[in-house]
Amino acid sequence: MKNLLIIGAGRSATALINYILEQARQHDFFITVADADVELARQKVGGHPKGRAIWLDASKPNDRRDVIGRHDVVVSLLPPQMHLELAQDCISLGKHMVTASYVSKQVFRLGDEARQRALVFMNELGLDPGIDHMSSMQRIHKIRAQGGKITAFYSYTGGLVAPESDDNPWHYKFSWNPRNVVLAGQGTAQFLEDGKLKFIPYRRLFRQYNLIDIPDMGQWEVYANRDSLLYREAYGLRDIKTLFRGTIRHQGFCDAWNALIRIGLTDATFPIVDSDQLTYHDLMEAFLGISQHTGSVKDRIAKLIEVDPEGEVMKKLEWLGLFSKRRIKVNNVTPSLILENLLLEKWALQPNDKDMVIMQHVFEYELNRRKRKLTSTLVMKGNNGSDTAMSKLVGVPLGIFVKLLLLGKISTTGVSIPTMPEVYEPVMSELEDYGVKFIEQEE
Amino acid sequence: MKNLLIIGAGRSATALINYILEQARQHDFFITVADADVELARQKVGGHPKGRAIWLDASKPNDRRDVIGRHDVVVSLLPPQMHLELAQDCISLGKHMVTASYVSKQVFRLGDEARQRALVFMNELGLDPGIDHMSSMQRIHKIRAQGGKITAFYSYTGGLVAPESDDNPWHYKFSWNPRNVVLAGQGTAQFLEDGKLKFIPYRRLFRQYNLIDIPDMGQWEVYANRDSLLYREAYGLRDIKTLFRGTIRHQGFCDAWNALIRIGLTDATFPIVDSDQLTYHDLMEAFLGISQHTGSVKDRIAKLIEVDPEGEVMKKLEWLGLFSKRRIKVNNVTPSLILENLLLEKWALQPNDKDMVIMQHVFEYELNRRKRKLTSTLVMKGNNGSDTAMSKLVGVPLGIFVKLLLLGKISTTGVSIPTMPEVYEPVMSELEDYGVKFIEQEE
Repeated sequence: MKNLLIIGAGRSATALINYILEQARQHDFFITVADADVELARQKVGGHPKGRAIWLDASKPNDRRDVIGRHDVVVSLLPPQMHLELAQDCISLGKHMVTASYVSKQVFRLGDEARQRALVFMNELGLDPGIDHMSSMQRIHKIRAQGGKITAFYSYTGGLVAPESDDNPWHYKFSWNPRNVVLAGQGTAQFLEDGKLKFIPYRRLFRQYNLIDIPDMGQWEVYANRDSLLYREAYGLRDIKTLFRGTIRHQGFCDAWNALIRIGLTDATFPIVDSDQLTYHDLMEAFLGISQHTGSVKDRIAKLIEVDPEGEVMKKLEWLGLFSKRRIKVNNVTPSLILENLLLEKWALQPNDKDMVIMQHVFEYELNRRKRKLTSTLVMKGNNGSDTAMSKLVGVPLGIFVKLLLLGKISTTGVSIPTMPEVYEPVMSELEDYGVKFIEQEE
Repeated sequence: MKNLLIIGAGRSATALINYILEQARQHDFFITVADADVELARQKVGGHPKGRAIWLDASKPNDRRDVIGRHDVVVSLLPPQMHLELAQDCISLGKHMVTASYVSKQVFRLGDEARQRALVFMNELGLDPGIDHMSSMQRIHKIRAQGGKITAFYSYTGGLVAPESDDNPWHYKFSWNPRNVVLAGQGTAQFLEDGKLKFIPYRRLFRQYNLIDIPDMGQWEVYANRDSLLYREAYGLRDIKTLFRGTIRHQGFCDAWNALIRIGLTDATFPIVDSDQLTYHDLMEAFLGISQHTGSVKDRIAKLIEVDPEGEVMKKLEWLGLFSKRRIKVNNVTPSLILENLLLEKWALQPNDKDMVIMQHVFEYELNRRKRKLTSTLVMKGNNGSDTAMSKLVGVPLGIFVKLLLLGKISTTGVSIPTMPEVYEPVMSELEDYGVKFIEQEE
């Protein structure tokens, strides 16, 4: 019998736990789900005979090591900043470790040690990062095998609301971590265009968006992701001329989000003292700064951010209640947390809502002296507000990989991300049973 | 004999060391200057019979405590993040501690412990913070003593270049920490205007500047400092309607600095890989992002930031060499470090240059049912590129306070900033001998 430990039973754990429990009887796996909230872990295990829930405060090294020591493979769904300590435990205890998180520099540096001990430390195994790596690499390797030379690669992902559940003027609802949406893009995005390095600072990020076509779904907006350049190395695309990764949003989103940024509502650097004594209207007035115009706060905000006072952007801001005299509910928090709190209310996925994930890769390449273009698109909808496409696309790849690892089918040791055929072939193949099918167009 | 320990012999130590050595014989002080660069410490002590230089790596707790234990008062000129550890040492060893740095929350929380042990922990005792506190409080207490009610308080400080040494189009040279200048204002500035809370996000900070008049010096620009609201509590101005603190710059500076911010050059969040393979021209081209215009990089930058391509702002950018095909000298650093490195070259105070400090406070108050206004202004120039007004105005207040403390004339225990008469009266009075004289205008 193989013993799997899953640390963390939160939202991202459900699809993984369901998948691996389904596989457990057939393959003789036993699954331990550990969480500081043992009741939550118990619910997720649901009395399955091959699973159990245990209490664990993962910040306590002795308790943590004690539990890890009694398992063969550890999946961590803890916040990324915990992964270094956990990885160090796994190295000293000789356990494999799997996460859906980005590899930090510190974890990356443990690669040699993990390899020397023949340990598999696989990361970035969710949707984005995760399915993006696997589906891209599958195509990159295929184009190369035909003798093609890739000159440009564009890759876009969006966690969105399905059109049938889209009933607000922003055309957006949260299917994942709201904090990441509110803070998205702070810093400067980097990419390559025609062999030249390009930067887009946060202040221009939601202004300099592109439009893309999704088959049968119309046009969508795409803004640049922070770190496209990293993928030259990771995907072996060292000579590529154009490399751009982006996030997909509904048309009209970027201009309106840019308005929130311009006002200052995404600022996460300072707490507003006694913020629960203010109304949203007071907050807007505060952001007007030194008074330069007259008129209503709404009109002055429209002037400040240079948009039509009767236009779509202002309608979206008004729909959020930003000009209402309602009290702010959270105290002594940053503007970005006030915004997050408001959006949680306004952009909640309702029990019967369906979310939607869109992923698209575009490869431009030369084959037999001809220029070609391959577009590969995934559109997937969830079933309802809990059984979302997002949670499935994050959890199932983790589950499939863990099954392969427990069955001894993974030979890549060290700290990796899933760019190699022995991982992406079986994972992408089995994902098709879950409706993960990319539609390809050749030009 | 009283023993004083000064930790840190860098630029900010010179005026302090000179002052206190001058006082040492008369008052029987002995001064130890400790630095990891013992040669630097030795130079500063200059063979004075009442002083000595010692080697100290302040990051080593045992060495540090050993040295602290043998002194009565500790002045720390270490980077602010070291002050918590040092304060803990001073508490456990029963020593007084003095700094010119802002009080962190963590240090502030040691107040009760320090008070119980009858220890003086005085901070913010330089120029800004320092002389600003003392000169403001002196006037606030005086207005109150007359029965006046303060309704508005504006306070401005600038570390500048003296007009006779001003020979560049920015009309600015570094007289203090260049990093603080490059990163100034990141976050959101907060102040009060007519009883209303006001915010200015970084993106508008150098656009929403005010103009102020300095007697005999003409008009200057002022942009808002981050934390004006803190001074309600610190200065006992709880009912004040308008409270604004700002930084003084030469006319034309703010628009041009705003251009650097808009381009993205003050970004400190990501390193540019292989930055020493780029020219400044390449860097500007990268910041153009997705190409939307044609023409030279210079013309496209002017369009991007919406300024006249032949105007003053572009002339200042060009003078910095931002459009030159010269290689960037620093590798794998953030845009803000590339900018800092360039400015260090362009804005260096030359050996014969004089710096200039301007500080101005404006108090609006009601006395006998009449509205009044008091403007109090300090203008002070340095002697040359090393003996600067800035270094004197940071170091001498520290020195005077330390003398008072060593002579047993300070009774305020706990963690404080210099807002009380027993500190500001003697310090401001003695500072007059050093040319620190505020000119007052009543309206």
